[in-house]
Amino acid sequence: MKNAIVGQSGGPTAVINASLMGIIEECLKNRGEITNLYGAVNGIEGVLKEEFVDLYAEDPERVRELEGTPGAALGGCRYMIQSSDTADADIKRVFEVFGRYGIRYFFYVGGNDSMDTSMKLDAAAKKLGYDLKVVGVPKTIDNDIPETDHSPGYGSCVRYLVTSLIESGLHARSMKSAEPVTILVTVGRESGWLPAACSLARRSDGEPPHIICFPEVPFERERFVRAVADVYKKHGFVYIVAGEGLKDCFGEYLNTEDDALSTDAFGHPILGGVAISLKQIVEKDLGLKARIITPDICQQAASHLSSKVDLDEAEECGRTAVRIALSGGSGCMINMIRTSSAPYTITYGTVPLDRVANLCRDVPPEFIGEGGMCVTDEFMEYITPLIGDGNKGNNLRFYRGLEMLRLKAEPRLK
Amino acid sequence: MKNAIVGQSGGPTAVINASLMGIIEECLKNRGEITNLYGAVNGIEGVLKEEFVDLYAEDPERVRELEGTPGAALGGCRYMIQSSDTADADIKRVFEVFGRYGIRYFFYVGGNDSMDTSMKLDAAAKKLGYDLKVVGVPKTIDNDIPETDHSPGYGSCVRYLVTSLIESGLHARSMKSAEPVTILVTVGRESGWLPAACSLARRSDGEPPHIICFPEVPFERERFVRAVADVYKKHGFVYIVAGEGLKDCFGEYLNTEDDALSTDAFGHPILGGVAISLKQIVEKDLGLKARIITPDICQQAASHLSSKVDLDEAEECGRTAVRIALSGGSGCMINMIRTSSAPYTITYGTVPLDRVANLCRDVPPEFIGEGGMCVTDEFMEYITPLIGDGNKGNNLRFYRGLEMLRLKAEPRLK
Repeated sequence: MKNAIVGQSGGPTAVINASLMGIIEECLKNRGEITNLYGAVNGIEGVLKEEFVDLYAEDPERVRELEGTPGAALGGCRYMIQSSDTADADIKRVFEVFGRYGIRYFFYVGGNDSMDTSMKLDAAAKKLGYDLKVVGVPKTIDNDIPETDHSPGYGSCVRYLVTSLIESGLHARSMKSAEPVTILVTVGRESGWLPAACSLARRSDGEPPHIICFPEVPFERERFVRAVADVYKKHGFVYIVAGEGLKDCFGEYLNTEDDALSTDAFGHPILGGVAISLKQIVEKDLGLKARIITPDICQQAASHLSSKVDLDEAEECGRTAVRIALSGGSGCMINMIRTSSAPYTITYGTVPLDRVANLCRDVPPEFIGEGGMCVTDEFMEYITPLIGDGNKGNNLRFYRGLEMLRLKAEPRLK
Repeated sequence: MKNAIVGQSGGPTAVINASLMGIIEECLKNRGEITNLYGAVNGIEGVLKEEFVDLYAEDPERVRELEGTPGAALGGCRYMIQSSDTADADIKRVFEVFGRYGIRYFFYVGGNDSMDTSMKLDAAAKKLGYDLKVVGVPKTIDNDIPETDHSPGYGSCVRYLVTSLIESGLHARSMKSAEPVTILVTVGRESGWLPAACSLARRSDGEPPHIICFPEVPFERERFVRAVADVYKKHGFVYIVAGEGLKDCFGEYLNTEDDALSTDAFGHPILGGVAISLKQIVEKDLGLKARIITPDICQQAASHLSSKVDLDEAEECGRTAVRIALSGGSGCMINMIRTSSAPYTITYGTVPLDRVANLCRDVPPEFIGEGGMCVTDEFMEYITPLIGDGNKGNNLRFYRGLEMLRLKAEPRLK
């Protein structure tokens, strides 16, 4: 009996279950080698608590349906096996469970932190002489996992944000006389991949988003205020997209002056505080009324706007993980290597876990435009194929009605 | 020459341009009686500034496209002709412009406040002996306009919110071990029609939303905390939907203790403050980590999730306004009267402007369930047909994958 466990870890994406589906189907194809596949409930927590799901027993049709289902079907977790006393106890417990269930394969779908857990299990297995293949499957809307062209989950989140930008941008423009400033704050922690991608909503200079605030670029209040004033003067309204993890020149999170709001009940900084901070700055320094939008987990769960490319890639990353493990690979994460942007083509490979675990990939300087508040053409080339139907296009729905009408305003009747 | 003006006022909805399209097409059908149709840019502001669009000159195909375009194609406004010194000057100016352009018909697409402007113009015309037909077209996602079964804009906004609830609800459930509380705050000012409608996302007891906070029900911290604790105990996670205009027993807006955040730069209360207030209460009183979602104008602009019923009704309200004006009606707003819920049928009528202007319709007691944190079956019957394809169904996409897997967790292998 050689059995496998699959777990989902960290915050879910709209396509995390597509990876799970890929893993289940690929394991089923190889029943000769993988006798049983167990789903760990809430990632590594499920292993520690021995909470499993018998995935081979599921109706194949229902497994297929997982592809487009939001949330983590097995439950996600934020638990990490850390280098501490608990770590040893946790690892001991994990291998006791693995031994009991005859586990020889461990697939973990997650982000940077989850790859750390995978790495620790791989290292422990080697140390213990326990025959285990550990393969990680990348997952994050943040797109901050290193050593891969991009991560499954990112493209779908972007498609949702860009759709929201196009729609709310038209709304904001039509309300400029009353509500001139709009601030949308994305998740993505300390990386600016999501705010950057919102640029896809803009086809010409005057269209939202007008200003992008990257966590990679230290926030300077004066420069920001000047930029807002410039756009307002030129276009009569300003649409700002900011990453939740903005920091000032001293590396401090941008937050309200109110301490009660800058940390949560657990003392962790509330990254969402950036929305209120920016609103206060715009209102105090420029006297312009600002609205704030924080889609939060809606952007991670928006299956109704999933990118077909993203779904397919998430599934294929899952399938590849199984194939790699069966061919003897371990201690690695599946990665994607882009071979061409037009037409868009990628290949799948592996990268050792120690090159991704706990590491973050910032938006590189060549993707950030002059002044630090926009993106480059190079970035647009990078992002465009990820959000739609691949070489068939990006499927965004733009609108033209409004422009046409507004252009004709004024001159006609005078 | 008998000409007409159409304006859009207040915050746009996803279907406000469908009403505009209906008005344009219906006027075009009656060119013999309505020689020209002018679009006022930014509602009444456009009349005062003489900023018009020649709507008959537009390409009919582009006019058709308006139906699904977010924002207000002519521009919205928050300007009201109030009972003050400016009011007289404004009215004088409006009629000077009307006279110059040969205006005999005025169509105004807007909410409670905009109907006040329409009412003032109608009254002034009568006083001046100026031949003018004024007809209002209802528009608001808040659904708080009295004397109509519902308002165009509401159903589409609900469809967006319910989709977001279903998706983010699955996400929240799968993350319950790490992030047990989610708080989504809708717009809708002091009425709870939007939070109430989020109930459509729930098909059984354990599904989100678990708690609905109506602005109509005075907020009591203790009762709220007890309800959150109960749901948490029973289901392991809690999804709360709250209206932005929650008030305590003294009629004060629920807001953070920080004054700087409870009012904006203009001294107006920030209704969005309710999200942070509820988060702080949940974290302080229960020690449960809470995430907040504030979709803000995205919920007003979400054309990609428009309700077909809503689009059709918005258009028909516009067309009816033109027909009523041509048959001599004035000083009224188009309303919808429901004749049956299953099958869903409505008829269109009119209501005098003084019965809607500046008035708000709360969610009635018979729609609010026991305990004041849920809805009744009567409300579900009311809301269901509004968000989809009418008698063909409500088009919501539910998911079943997750449930099935999670139900089988644990027992199998022990």
